[in-house]
Amino acid sequence: MHPSIVIREVVSQDKRYVLPPGAGSDAVHTAPTYGYAVCVLRTDRSEEGVGLAFTLGTGNPLVCEAIRHLAGKLVGQEIHALMAGFGRIFRTLADDAAYRWLGPHKGVVHLALAAITNACFDLWAKAHQVPLWKLLNDLSPEALLDAIDISYLEDVLPRAEALGILTQRDATRKDAEQILRTGYRGYDTSVGWFEYSDGQIRDNVRRAMDAGFTAMKLKVGSKDAGRDIRRAMLVREVAGDTATIMLDANQQWSLPDAIRICSALQPMNPYWIEEPTHPDDVQAHRTLADAIAPLRIALGEHVPNRVLFKNYLQTGAMSFNQADAVRVGGVAEYIAISLLSRKFNIPMVPHVGDMGQIHQHLVLFNHIRVGHEALFLEYIPHLRDHFVHPARVTGGFYQVPQEPGLSAALR
Amino acid sequence: MHPSIVIREVVSQDKRYVLPPGAGSDAVHTAPTYGYAVCVLRTDRSEEGVGLAFTLGTGNPLVCEAIRHLAGKLVGQEIHALMAGFGRIFRTLADDAAYRWLGPHKGVVHLALAAITNACFDLWAKAHQVPLWKLLNDLSPEALLDAIDISYLEDVLPRAEALGILTQRDATRKDAEQILRTGYRGYDTSVGWFEYSDGQIRDNVRRAMDAGFTAMKLKVGSKDAGRDIRRAMLVREVAGDTATIMLDANQQWSLPDAIRICSALQPMNPYWIEEPTHPDDVQAHRTLADAIAPLRIALGEHVPNRVLFKNYLQTGAMSFNQADAVRVGGVAEYIAISLLSRKFNIPMVPHVGDMGQIHQHLVLFNHIRVGHEALFLEYIPHLRDHFVHPARVTGGFYQVPQEPGLSAALR
Repeated sequence: MHPSIVIREVVSQDKRYVLPPGAGSDAVHTAPTYGYAVCVLRTDRSEEGVGLAFTLGTGNPLVCEAIRHLAGKLVGQEIHALMAGFGRIFRTLADDAAYRWLGPHKGVVHLALAAITNACFDLWAKAHQVPLWKLLNDLSPEALLDAIDISYLEDVLPRAEALGILTQRDATRKDAEQILRTGYRGYDTSVGWFEYSDGQIRDNVRRAMDAGFTAMKLKVGSKDAGRDIRRAMLVREVAGDTATIMLDANQQWSLPDAIRICSALQPMNPYWIEEPTHPDDVQAHRTLADAIAPLRIALGEHVPNRVLFKNYLQTGAMSFNQADAVRVGGVAEYIAISLLSRKFNIPMVPHVGDMGQIHQHLVLFNHIRVGHEALFLEYIPHLRDHFVHPARVTGGFYQVPQEPGLSAALR
Repeated sequence: MHPSIVIREVVSQDKRYVLPPGAGSDAVHTAPTYGYAVCVLRTDRSEEGVGLAFTLGTGNPLVCEAIRHLAGKLVGQEIHALMAGFGRIFRTLADDAAYRWLGPHKGVVHLALAAITNACFDLWAKAHQVPLWKLLNDLSPEALLDAIDISYLEDVLPRAEALGILTQRDATRKDAEQILRTGYRGYDTSVGWFEYSDGQIRDNVRRAMDAGFTAMKLKVGSKDAGRDIRRAMLVREVAGDTATIMLDANQQWSLPDAIRICSALQPMNPYWIEEPTHPDDVQAHRTLADAIAPLRIALGEHVPNRVLFKNYLQTGAMSFNQADAVRVGGVAEYIAISLLSRKFNIPMVPHVGDMGQIHQHLVLFNHIRVGHEALFLEYIPHLRDHFVHPARVTGGFYQVPQEPGLSAALR
């Protein structure tokens, strides 16, 4: 079997990166810094586990302190033994008696749990000397469920039903594995950051299409809805009728505004409207979904945990599930959300707070192992030089990562 | 007019208090420490604003750091000018570009906003030399709405409708003001902490009734439902048929468990079941409410903001609104939630993370100014010696506080 690897030390790191002018800007953030609170698990061998939570930099000290507090319990644990029952450990960390009050299961303490959980899964995959997607795809249904926590989902996804999804899929997944030869389609988010000029957007759309992308995104949510509409029409004009164009309002609209502006945006035929209003407002999204159909809603980058995702799915308030493994409680909770979303037939299209490093693994798991449709994965290149193994996107497709672990190690 | 008071410095304080054995224990916390992250606004005069966020101690450094970061913007501001447009300031702080990602509007950063907001309202009331309840009850409807942020409520509570609630009430509130003579009824939470023995509970129930309380609470949510049921029957037996007895499960049940155990608890005729399951799970509470009627659900101590409260109210998933001004974004967001709850005819029965110091003011506002029914206010005496002006509860009634401000200053 695989040799034992014991966690000896937990280190948290505050990483921040300045972006090029305009890059990353949206209706909330005019000049963001990207940042990660990083959990590093040092071991008695050369392997170390590295997990990320995405922040915008300034919040890193809070998340880093929470990582140190929570992850202390992992010191001394052997990784294979730990991960064989990680679902229980996850719940223990999520319900830490002192920190639970600060959430529960949301905000700073849950971002810390994301980084810790991701570091554990990274180390587990490295211990098997395989990339994360392969580790997850090769685990038995029982072992996979033992590694995650599906409490509070009992009413819609009891364990037997989750097992059923995985077991059934295992019998039919062969065809889906051909995606390991083609790679996973990407879409380009960097054509239309909020602060980019019309001229920049025009150039970026052309460049994206030349690079093989057929899908791309524009930031809207301006106080001036006229600007949003004009720029959306511009992207459509340059990209042509067959391009897939998504619009992202970054939560800036009230429900009445969202209904009004989405209707005005319909003529440019957006593929989805992303985060039209407040991310906690399941009912507003439900009402909006009815009001703007057939235009569909994508959201999830600010939804903190599986319980709120359950509510979104139960009410039919989302059409695309953008859960982010560096926002929810890491890979473990992401898997629970993927299973839940499968049950409701809502495709997973991750937000890439990790710049697609971890999610390039998770989309392969979603498609091959859970049976989600392979749509496309967001691509944002601004931090690629900072990763040890940056995601490789060629001809518009993510190439299948081969390095052991979940590819989150930073230079 | 009132003299100018300018904020000169923001200080955050980490306050922790050890409780007597068993006190404060529930199904999650066997031996809690109570703690506050305190925001102190020092000024160019003798008055200072003091605001609390409730934590369980260990999380204080996180919240205190977030207070320092967010409240820096208040230095140099004059309190009357600040509060005349506090709704806008609140939104600016809640949407701080660097911290918003860590929520939004939940968790550590929102607890920090609670402490800051409460300190501003405390200073404002002190500047008027009146207790908070009197300040709020005497503000014009417009001034009150300018001091709060009702964005993301437009679909159910547009400003004109909120104004209407206040204006209508002003014409009819005289009768309600007699509560200023009687005081506000309290209920005793400390009879039935989770770790108390049956004997202690028996004694505490008798002592509570002797002290004039007619309503009291028992902690349930045990892994052993039989223990919960037995102890609930015990409280009923000692307190008698006419006592009002509430049960609190502290989120420990899955939905199927909640349905099953609530049914078994019905024979002791509980007044409400509190926090039966996960506080983000609006749909589960909605389903449960139907399944266990006429038993009603109380919740809110872990609901982070007005948007989630809106969802609870819209779906009819709560019968008692336990919003806590030291959890949501302070007094400002509490007022928004109170108006919202009034629209849906759901009474406010605050959770007292502040031990009733601030909420003794807010219930008077809820009843007199907003028109909520005066039910009762939770009473927990364990920290009373630590406050400069501890709430006075005699004969089971909170006495109306007369000191200027919101009574949160700690010794």
